[in-house]
Amino acid sequence: MSGTIAGLGEFGLIARIAARLRRPAEGVLLGIGDDTAVLDMGGPRLTLATVDMQVEGRHFLRERTPPELLGRRVAAVNLSDIAAMGGTPRWALVSLALPASLPVTWVDAFYEGLDALLGAHGAAVVGGNLAGNDRIVADLTLLGDVERGALLTRGGARLGDLICVTGTLGRSAAGRAALDADPTAEDAAAIRAHLAPEPRVREGQVLAAAGGVTAMIDLSDGLAGDLAHICTRSDMGARIETALLPVAADTHRIALRLGLDPLRLALSGGEDFELLFTAPAARVERLRAAVFAATGSAVTVIGEVRPAEEGRRLIGAPDRETPPGGWDHFQRERQGEAR
Amino acid sequence: MSGTIAGLGEFGLIARIAARLRRPAEGVLLGIGDDTAVLDMGGPRLTLATVDMQVEGRHFLRERTPPELLGRRVAAVNLSDIAAMGGTPRWALVSLALPASLPVTWVDAFYEGLDALLGAHGAAVVGGNLAGNDRIVADLTLLGDVERGALLTRGGARLGDLICVTGTLGRSAAGRAALDADPTAEDAAAIRAHLAPEPRVREGQVLAAAGGVTAMIDLSDGLAGDLAHICTRSDMGARIETALLPVAADTHRIALRLGLDPLRLALSGGEDFELLFTAPAARVERLRAAVFAATGSAVTVIGEVRPAEEGRRLIGAPDRETPPGGWDHFQRERQGEAR
Repeated sequence: MSGTIAGLGEFGLIARIAARLRRPAEGVLLGIGDDTAVLDMGGPRLTLATVDMQVEGRHFLRERTPPELLGRRVAAVNLSDIAAMGGTPRWALVSLALPASLPVTWVDAFYEGLDALLGAHGAAVVGGNLAGNDRIVADLTLLGDVERGALLTRGGARLGDLICVTGTLGRSAAGRAALDADPTAEDAAAIRAHLAPEPRVREGQVLAAAGGVTAMIDLSDGLAGDLAHICTRSDMGARIETALLPVAADTHRIALRLGLDPLRLALSGGEDFELLFTAPAARVERLRAAVFAATGSAVTVIGEVRPAEEGRRLIGAPDRETPPGGWDHFQRERQGEAR
Repeated sequence: MSGTIAGLGEFGLIARIAARLRRPAEGVLLGIGDDTAVLDMGGPRLTLATVDMQVEGRHFLRERTPPELLGRRVAAVNLSDIAAMGGTPRWALVSLALPASLPVTWVDAFYEGLDALLGAHGAAVVGGNLAGNDRIVADLTLLGDVERGALLTRGGARLGDLICVTGTLGRSAAGRAALDADPTAEDAAAIRAHLAPEPRVREGQVLAAAGGVTAMIDLSDGLAGDLAHICTRSDMGARIETALLPVAADTHRIALRLGLDPLRLALSGGEDFELLFTAPAARVERLRAAVFAATGSAVTVIGEVRPAEEGRRLIGAPDRETPPGGWDHFQRERQGEAR
């Protein structure tokens, strides 16, 4: 395994690529290493550009994923990246590799789901590319924009800031587990959270406009992994109070029924597509009120930004001082997993 | 096959998708159906966005394609799309699906080739995405920009305009054929044209700046297919003089040796990545001189824009009044081909 991608891991490989390619380039405010590039095209707003690829057999199984939902998922992952910057999604390019034997109605339904979610957030498909392949590969590039003053990134968290999260944690992972087992009617909301996640675009915009947020990221890999990105970029540590983590009743119920640890679902279940952000304590109440008024979404304080030397600590779970890591795509591959 | 993608074909599928998705969207000057989207972000220049996916076993074979050359190819295909609009390439997002067993040095070499060609044209990688997969999939999104007045598209060819092409035709296909057979030292330039094509970025900019060009496209599918795009978008026909087609001496030599038809290579060999454009006769000499002075590239007049009702006619090849079609990825797939 030495010298292979599996040996290096996803984040190791990204760091290696970034180190090779990072060079000054005109108009690039934020480049490789973030989920979203920030570009200055000389206009009144900054341009955001993000891309995400979904591979059949790796990120989804064709027989278990209706094409509308795959289209929605591809849109959601990218919309969530734009949301994390406080941006407005605008234009999408869709690159698809498709088997020639695929029914045309599959393609119709895929675009139906994709376009419905993009359209709900004001974005539209403006181009793309088609290729043949034995497996479906869907790669979406999403462009957005943001006011120059309103951009939020992973860096910027300050000592003493509170750590906050929108919505609830672990529900997507609970929904996935319920689907894998024997789902009941009570699991519908959790299953929907997994199959048709709702990116927090409006929440991100409200947080950016309200002022006071110091760092933000969307929760795609799981709280543990994504919090680590904020800490690294901000050169800070963090203390998370497990008792404060917002875990929904249905998530607890599914975990109990299937013998899963709800805390683990919340910390590293992944794909919640909620927003994780930091802000000074004095601003949090106002931010919470603004998000609730505009969207109905809850904001929960779950911890505090600490000095870098304290690392990331989880309070209330003594056997887990260090939060377990987030998803690593290549490590997952070694375990032969597929969702 | 009825109801499948193979039955509909690539261009049929694109038309179907475009018909479903085409709706007014803010800031979109040119959307689905062109190789490159043209977006108005409110700045001094228009934004260009294009994407192209290369799939292992379909567009390339891993054991025959050194990773540097694959990186260059991915860059070249997209640079050529920006060149066709007269644009300046700026920022690239790279989405890669990679087998975990792939050596890290493969990834290094891929980015080496990609970045070298992007950098030679003033563009830089600003972000991307990594996924696991058993086959390599490389999807590149390239953003560029162009002065508002200088944008060139496929539409706009006018009756009586001359049809012109940069460089030579069929050389990439000849190089591919030579590689498949038993290449000799004399084939080196043709093989290089196939493995490491040079997109005509500077030529496109010079043509756009000189004024007078009415329509332009890059030759990725082959002259026959790409000329059809200009004719359709411009609602015009075309007459091509086969005797005028610029076919290089090495292309003729390889064709002769391997029993291939040089005319077929020139018309539908594909991947020449030259620029095909139309302009009034009175402007052509000035355009030719400007391109030659700035780049050393030749410009050859190969025919004339005719009324739509005359269709596309090939003069000097009596048994082929209608040019053979260009590449169709899904039709090719049915033949089980892979390059």
